Amino acid sequence: MHRKILETIREFIREHDMLVPGDRVIIGLSGGADSVSLLMILSELKKELNIELFAVHVHHGLRGKEADRDSIYAQELSENLGVPFVCVHANVAEYARINGVSEEEAGRHLRYRILEEQRLFRHAAKIAVAHHADDQVETVLYNLFRGSGLKGLGGMRPVRDAVIRPLLSVTRKEILAYLEEKEISYCEDSTNSGTDYIRNRLRHEIIPAVRERINEGAPSNILQAAKTAAAADACFEKAARRILESSGIRERREDGGVISIGISAENLKQEESIVRQYVIRQMIGETYLSLKDITSVHVEEAEKLLFKPVGRRIQLPDGGYALRTYDELWIKKEEKMLFSQSGGEETGLTPVMTTFPYKKGQEIPKNRYTKWFDYDKINSALSVRYRETGDYITLAGGGRKTVKSFMIDEKIPKEERGKILLAADGSHILWIIGYRISEYYKITDDTHTVLQIQIDGGKIDE
Amino acid sequence: MHRKILETIREFIREHDMLVPGDRVIIGLSGGADSVSLLMILSELKKELNIELFAVHVHHGLRGKEADRDSIYAQELSENLGVPFVCVHANVAEYARINGVSEEEAGRHLRYRILEEQRLFRHAAKIAVAHHADDQVETVLYNLFRGSGLKGLGGMRPVRDAVIRPLLSVTRKEILAYLEEKEISYCEDSTNSGTDYIRNRLRHEIIPAVRERINEGAPSNILQAAKTAAAADACFEKAARRILESSGIRERREDGGVISIGISAENLKQEESIVRQYVIRQMIGETYLSLKDITSVHVEEAEKLLFKPVGRRIQLPDGGYALRTYDELWIKKEEKMLFSQSGGEETGLTPVMTTFPYKKGQEIPKNRYTKWFDYDKINSALSVRYRETGDYITLAGGGRKTVKSFMIDEKIPKEERGKILLAADGSHILWIIGYRISEYYKITDDTHTVLQIQIDGGKIDE
Repeated sequence: MHRKILETIREFIREHDMLVPGDRVIIGLSGGADSVSLLMILSELKKELNIELFAVHVHHGLRGKEADRDSIYAQELSENLGVPFVCVHANVAEYARINGVSEEEAGRHLRYRILEEQRLFRHAAKIAVAHHADDQVETVLYNLFRGSGLKGLGGMRPVRDAVIRPLLSVTRKEILAYLEEKEISYCEDSTNSGTDYIRNRLRHEIIPAVRERINEGAPSNILQAAKTAAAADACFEKAARRILESSGIRERREDGGVISIGISAENLKQEESIVRQYVIRQMIGETYLSLKDITSVHVEEAEKLLFKPVGRRIQLPDGGYALRTYDELWIKKEEKMLFSQSGGEETGLTPVMTTFPYKKGQEIPKNRYTKWFDYDKINSALSVRYRETGDYITLAGGGRKTVKSFMIDEKIPKEERGKILLAADGSHILWIIGYRISEYYKITDDTHTVLQIQIDGGKIDE
Repeated sequence: MHRKILETIREFIREHDMLVPGDRVIIGLSGGADSVSLLMILSELKKELNIELFAVHVHHGLRGKEADRDSIYAQELSENLGVPFVCVHANVAEYARINGVSEEEAGRHLRYRILEEQRLFRHAAKIAVAHHADDQVETVLYNLFRGSGLKGLGGMRPVRDAVIRPLLSVTRKEILAYLEEKEISYCEDSTNSGTDYIRNRLRHEIIPAVRERINEGAPSNILQAAKTAAAADACFEKAARRILESSGIRERREDGGVISIGISAENLKQEESIVRQYVIRQMIGETYLSLKDITSVHVEEAEKLLFKPVGRRIQLPDGGYALRTYDELWIKKEEKMLFSQSGGEETGLTPVMTTFPYKKGQEIPKNRYTKWFDYDKINSALSVRYRETGDYITLAGGGRKTVKSFMIDEKIPKEERGKILLAADGSHILWIIGYRISEYYKITDDTHTVLQIQIDGGKIDE
């Protein structure tokens, strides 16, 4: 049994190119059965894969003594295995309250954020999380029942950006058998007894009923279907990317951000409808920060513009729109509208700040919504706020410019100016978010510590 | 309500090009709510669509008086609407016994067969069946839980060959409301109270539990996902077809049937894995009668041959195989193996015979397993059997050839000869099935009645 699970996971890691020799891997370690076995298994494979492990435990501050016990257990286990361990405290309750989300969602959000911070801090390539095949079945049904396309039907991806999921190939039952054979104990998994009623009902009511009344083998059939859906999704994404790379027309700001993107209507009409929709979704993705408020109806309506007269447009969320011109279909999103109607917090866009040591030559992200600054140049406490009198930025030559005159020069209407968020060090502005970063705070060869500020969009598959 | 359901269906018919002016449409009319409303609605749309309707009731011979009552009701309703009506008796129990399938499956099989016979007989273009949105939700979950790719996740198609499903766009609830408003009664639908336990459990247990415990809107989300899956499936089918049309290498028998098909391994490797698998599935489809015993494992194994050394092969069901040569990947299926191991009946290949009047100039099907003969030239009772001494066919010039010498000339090994099925009129053979039809029985301008013999494969989506 033990040999078998190891082989399955080794093969799965290989199949998806999850790890390369020399990789440092952050492991999210709750202390529950799933993450304990993830740590155990990666420890067993550590030598042959030539990887380095770090265990990160996120203390949610929610379940009192029980949570402390989990934390201590996780630490002891890591130490026994000779894996460096860190416990990070997260105020899940407060995050949930401020962002108006469930504690479940807040916990998930914060966990990923903390793991990503640890990854940057430790110059690690990967984050390994412990989702297994049963979680995947749940996710697929959750998405199917609550509405989703191929992307959601595909479930969680084995590899997504830096996140890898080596256990997706094995079931909870196999994991428990492995732990039993190894005589390893574990804590009751906090994510399994969580507060997400819908997931609990899927797990404890719907899936058992399907197995008993319809087909005992339903879970593995669902996994197989998900694999196909994910492959189809990847294929259409690739086709759409190719089309946009070769024939997308972009209007950019000076920071490289796309404010509008167009594509030849005649060319797009040649494609299958499903490919057209992937192209349009990617066009929206390039101009919008997050696709989370974009529904299939928006995409379908934009697609219909291909067959509508010149000048027709449809409204998209947050003031963006799709427009039919004579030759093209355009997606336009005025940058100034990014935080417009309601300000950052209410649109769910929380700036995330992370600090980590700078490694010379490290590639600075070109992402419009993720910026790096020289942390040691910050004088006072950093804040993210709207403009105030006296705000200024440093220009390339070293001179200063007031935020007010910057906004006038950029032709931002008066009534919009107060709606743009700024990352501020007193009156010295690091970043007019969505527009310009101050020369003064840019990364140089002398930078010791990086401050990363990230405007946080939603994730789709978890 | 009534206006709304009509508009929804009219739009759905238009969207899928289900009907064109002048179409004759066979309606499967059980007398249940679904098919009664299908008949009613198509009657309402008859004038504006300029179509002609025929109602066909299949009497299953299973439920005694109740079935007779349904049949009478269906007839009365048709007559009231001025729609020509016919009742066809089917011996479902016997068919189920002979073919070793459930009565549910036998009923479905026979219904489609009878509707198709009626379509040919009445020179109708289309067969309309009454599946609605709730049936579709059931079908999608049924396929997902029992194992399927995009094809099955896509559910029943609105149009498939001659079969159209105008009610797929409306729910059972809308249908019942329509009938109530119109004050039309109906019989308890025999397919809804059928013996398919799995479907009944989905309908009465699983789907209600999902709506109540997970998401009330799950059914419409499932329908939306199915639409996307069907679109993706169609897109990959099309891509695969294009690839095979432009670069498939076919070895054919004289009757046009493909015995092996190859494709450049280098070219196929360039494609995405999912596209490769669609190509391989189509290759198998061209050499096999039916894909019903072909699993995703067969397809994946054949795909892997692309990366294996020359000469490697994998076995497929019924004696076919996939083979890697230096330049190509081949699917080969020796025709003589079609009925080999076990004879026709045991492989589930039942010949289906249909007669209908011949319309001059009507296109004769080029399908390898569907052949037409001049019915009036048949002297004695027709039989489908293995060869006997004295069997002969008529050649193009009018001469005769014994089946024995035909088989010798075709280099069919001695031990295989007795395993080939023949359609026989006494000693005069109409069709050496899979090989050759006799010149004597071919359709001419003088033909009055067509005998169609069809070797029956499985259907996938219903």
